Amino acid sequence: MNSVNKNLKKLVVNHSLELDCGKTIKDFPIAYETYGKLNEKKNNAVMVFHALTGDQFVTGINPVTKREGWWTTAVGPGKAIDTNKYFVICSNVLGGCMGTFGPTEIDTKTNKIFGTTFPVITIKDMVKAQKYLLDYLEIKKLLAVAGGSMGGMQVLQFVSLYPDSAYSAIPIACSASHSAQNIALNELGRQAIMADPNWKKEGSTPDKGLAVARMAAHITYLSKQGLQEKFGRKLQEKGSLKFSFDADFQIESYLRYQGANFVDRFDANSYLYITRAMDYFDLEKQFNGNLSLAFKNTKSKFCVISFSSDWLYPTVENKEIVIALNTCGANVGFVEIDTDKGHDSFLLNVPEFLKTLNEFLNSTYKEINNEKRI
Amino acid sequence: MNSVNKNLKKLVVNHSLELDCGKTIKDFPIAYETYGKLNEKKNNAVMVFHALTGDQFVTGINPVTKREGWWTTAVGPGKAIDTNKYFVICSNVLGGCMGTFGPTEIDTKTNKIFGTTFPVITIKDMVKAQKYLLDYLEIKKLLAVAGGSMGGMQVLQFVSLYPDSAYSAIPIACSASHSAQNIALNELGRQAIMADPNWKKEGSTPDKGLAVARMAAHITYLSKQGLQEKFGRKLQEKGSLKFSFDADFQIESYLRYQGANFVDRFDANSYLYITRAMDYFDLEKQFNGNLSLAFKNTKSKFCVISFSSDWLYPTVENKEIVIALNTCGANVGFVEIDTDKGHDSFLLNVPEFLKTLNEFLNSTYKEINNEKRI
Repeated sequence: MNSVNKNLKKLVVNHSLELDCGKTIKDFPIAYETYGKLNEKKNNAVMVFHALTGDQFVTGINPVTKREGWWTTAVGPGKAIDTNKYFVICSNVLGGCMGTFGPTEIDTKTNKIFGTTFPVITIKDMVKAQKYLLDYLEIKKLLAVAGGSMGGMQVLQFVSLYPDSAYSAIPIACSASHSAQNIALNELGRQAIMADPNWKKEGSTPDKGLAVARMAAHITYLSKQGLQEKFGRKLQEKGSLKFSFDADFQIESYLRYQGANFVDRFDANSYLYITRAMDYFDLEKQFNGNLSLAFKNTKSKFCVISFSSDWLYPTVENKEIVIALNTCGANVGFVEIDTDKGHDSFLLNVPEFLKTLNEFLNSTYKEINNEKRI
Repeated sequence: MNSVNKNLKKLVVNHSLELDCGKTIKDFPIAYETYGKLNEKKNNAVMVFHALTGDQFVTGINPVTKREGWWTTAVGPGKAIDTNKYFVICSNVLGGCMGTFGPTEIDTKTNKIFGTTFPVITIKDMVKAQKYLLDYLEIKKLLAVAGGSMGGMQVLQFVSLYPDSAYSAIPIACSASHSAQNIALNELGRQAIMADPNWKKEGSTPDKGLAVARMAAHITYLSKQGLQEKFGRKLQEKGSLKFSFDADFQIESYLRYQGANFVDRFDANSYLYITRAMDYFDLEKQFNGNLSLAFKNTKSKFCVISFSSDWLYPTVENKEIVIALNTCGANVGFVEIDTDKGHDSFLLNVPEFLKTLNEFLNSTYKEINNEKRI
């Protein structure tokens, strides 16, 4: 990956954080970004959690990759999460590679990057680290915590750890723990990286392995139907097969492009650590097999959102969260958005989804400000 | 992979076969195996076509791998395809690595293995090669052609090429062409192999890349539900996460085992060639976009079988074959077997499936022998 600009906005956390693995970290950086303005009441802040390969640059042009922020469709002036109205905060997760403490950081003991000597982290560790950022920003209670995929896991973990720190919570396209298939798919990615002889080799990066991991993941982000409609059996060169192993089909060249592109912006070890955190996440297990206990003390109002063609986190898994929330009497709404865009829907222009996000947020904001509903 | 025993049963085809790619091959070997006895009328022969990683050793112990033949559940004395009654023939496909002409064979011009200088082959090429074997065995009309997955594609291609050479046809868990998702998944496997620096390196084999390809494929052979029931989130070591990148979950160690095991018995280049053939297969395109024309002259009676939890070749794709057959007035039956075992169901002990296979075959045999049905 490209070396990360060191001029990123960072908080250095002076507290000691005991990680789930037993190790303690301190004086570690959290790189973050904010959009919009915090109002005087400090009740318009929305904390957005990013997914596996995301970062703090939610919207606008990402200054490091020079590409659009990962949630530009949903976040910005006049958008679903309107930065003219709300103060949006996002930080790079622990274990990430965009300035927050992770395997690409220098270990001061050795003067080398941590790489695989970095401690294995969990979703809980990530969320605890991000809470320090909120404390630093002096935000006592967020208007909302929101995120899709691994971002949704962080939402669930956040409200469970801090039941009175968010008026509302929007977990999107996620589950309270990974299915065997999802663990298998992540393990496939890890094995692809670890199979690359350049992994753990000083001065080299396992680009080919990481590209394969990304291709595998990318397939899972799209639905069978969506892929069929977009690519079908379309050829790169009209009407003629090459009878070789070059890319014949457009889907092949698309995948190769996705793989090759990804290695410029992401670190292979971060990929290992973050997928591990996702696989380890098990909110039910944290509460001895009773998921509803995770939300026992929650004061938040929930909007759980799933997508009909998401086979990575199918609706049935999102519904398990809803059932647990209902069981403990939480205030919860649930929407399944009908779309063929698969898991990636939360990142795409899916109007019904964006409308749901916008209206839920606006109504919450009105409620806490005692405004009347329209 | 292990070197292949040269004492395999082989036919050397003296004819010239012009391949779809334009190249011509001749004097090439087809390795095959037979089970049971051909009757006097020569009307009890069942040709079985194998899938991507199969070979000619359908049942009993495979003499090369020392493991059970790939269709031992379905084929053997007293089994669904009863070798006490039927004469079962299976040959290793063109491009394979169990004795039939493929990339592991020696190129007499260079005295080295063909490797990637082997011509790109198609399902049609495979089927044409296997027809030579039938001619050699002096079998004019088969009782049935049967096969699952890529085996099913060969079934379709066979009846299309030779409309009067089989009394019946049993395409199982397959489609008339690969969806974009299936091409993507195969391309993922190929990229994993080609990413391995040992690929195309003399004296080396890309074992790690091939293992990753196998892991990816293996995930697709099982259903989400099946994986969940079998593995769920079960740990290797009871109750404790290792906080490392070793296999924590049983599904991880299962996948690693599947990958590592596979490289002993399969050639990476064969994997490339055969997946390519699957992706290239497009029976509809062979008939200018009208699949029913593929079966226009067929005299065969069909039994199309799909599995409810097969997401690689979902029922809807199997049904397209049924629709095409109905359109041209063919004699066709269709069964969707309700199971959570995914695509792999055709290789497993799924009683309803085995019963369907058995009864269809027996009734066909009775019909052609003018026996009354019970």
